[in-house]
Amino acid sequence: MSVITIERKVLEKNDEVARQNRTAFAQRNIFTINLVSSPGAGKTSLVEKTLETLKGRVNIAVVEGDVQTDLDAQRVAKYSVPVVQIVTNGACHLEAKLVQDALVNLNLTNINLLIIENVGNLVCPANYDLGEHAKVVVASTTEGDDKPLKYPAMFRNASALIINKTDLLPYLPCSIDALKLNALSINPSLEIFETSCTTGKGIEPWCRWLEKRSVKETGAR
Amino acid sequence: MSVITIERKVLEKNDEVARQNRTAFAQRNIFTINLVSSPGAGKTSLVEKTLETLKGRVNIAVVEGDVQTDLDAQRVAKYSVPVVQIVTNGACHLEAKLVQDALVNLNLTNINLLIIENVGNLVCPANYDLGEHAKVVVASTTEGDDKPLKYPAMFRNASALIINKTDLLPYLPCSIDALKLNALSINPSLEIFETSCTTGKGIEPWCRWLEKRSVKETGAR
Repeated sequence: MSVITIERKVLEKNDEVARQNRTAFAQRNIFTINLVSSPGAGKTSLVEKTLETLKGRVNIAVVEGDVQTDLDAQRVAKYSVPVVQIVTNGACHLEAKLVQDALVNLNLTNINLLIIENVGNLVCPANYDLGEHAKVVVASTTEGDDKPLKYPAMFRNASALIINKTDLLPYLPCSIDALKLNALSINPSLEIFETSCTTGKGIEPWCRWLEKRSVKETGAR
Repeated sequence: MSVITIERKVLEKNDEVARQNRTAFAQRNIFTINLVSSPGAGKTSLVEKTLETLKGRVNIAVVEGDVQTDLDAQRVAKYSVPVVQIVTNGACHLEAKLVQDALVNLNLTNINLLIIENVGNLVCPANYDLGEHAKVVVASTTEGDDKPLKYPAMFRNASALIINKTDLLPYLPCSIDALKLNALSINPSLEIFETSCTTGKGIEPWCRWLEKRSVKETGAR
């Protein structure tokens, strides 16, 4: 029983800091997404393609979350955008406080869009609000079409689903229709994008969605 | 501080039950593996191929672990082996007690090998001993070659690494040599297998490794 009480307190404390983050993002007119997926679904490649595509259209900053290494921040830094790496040192998800601390090291002047790339984990990050405006879940076609049913919390809490690595579909026993149906059965309001970071297919519609929301969030204030 | 204390107690309690499981497996001469990976790396397909290949050679039982659904147990049941599904209902890993409870519902008469398929998660299951003799980590080529560096605990605690979906290598920016080097830099004593559950390539060496250990464990007592 005490474990459950402690866990509830941890989540309550996290939600409080998440609210502070959300207020900070609003004050700065920054639209923020929390990018989640299994390890290796292509989150960092998607961030790279997004930075490439939205260059000159939206000013973007990136927070990279990993259990270990700053490999992802190194990849993102090549695009000359503000980036900071959070190393969780074994912890399986980002928490709002880690993001709050990371923001201190990030130059957010004129930024319209903040991308937070979470730890690769399709379970634990679902429970931790970081103060983002939208949770975006990336599912790779290589993972098969049953993942929304097997990991429902992540798909339930997301605003958008990106089905990535569509270029590999000819070689896989994955039905994209079944994957969509399974995802929509868990969360009927999911916006769905199909992308390939290898060919670039589908990146523009995803970027337009981001651009529209970044401008809207900024313009509304 | 109290959270850390509680977590330590949870792990201590888990280790105690894991020891009980290990004793139970020894008494029954059952070699047990704990199969771990990211979601969608192909654990269940590997279990299916293993059951197919070792039919008539080793008597196998299976424990399936999932956050939600009994889809995997349904797939395994087609091979007419004893199987039980653990649904963790949101929890991100199996614990020794869940396995202990599951064993009550499993007919282990004449079983030489127990395969426990863990929840798809490359972080949390690393810390929870289930009483297995070997942790086996499955890494899919589609996840890229940097995963051992980014999720080191899982690779450090494993006895064997299965590099799966090798049939997709021609279409991926993944170097199998880099993947192996990265894995061995974390854990130099890893036994490494390369498999494709689609073509069947590499399944026999993996099954021989399992067979030898199952017989050895059984024969030694």
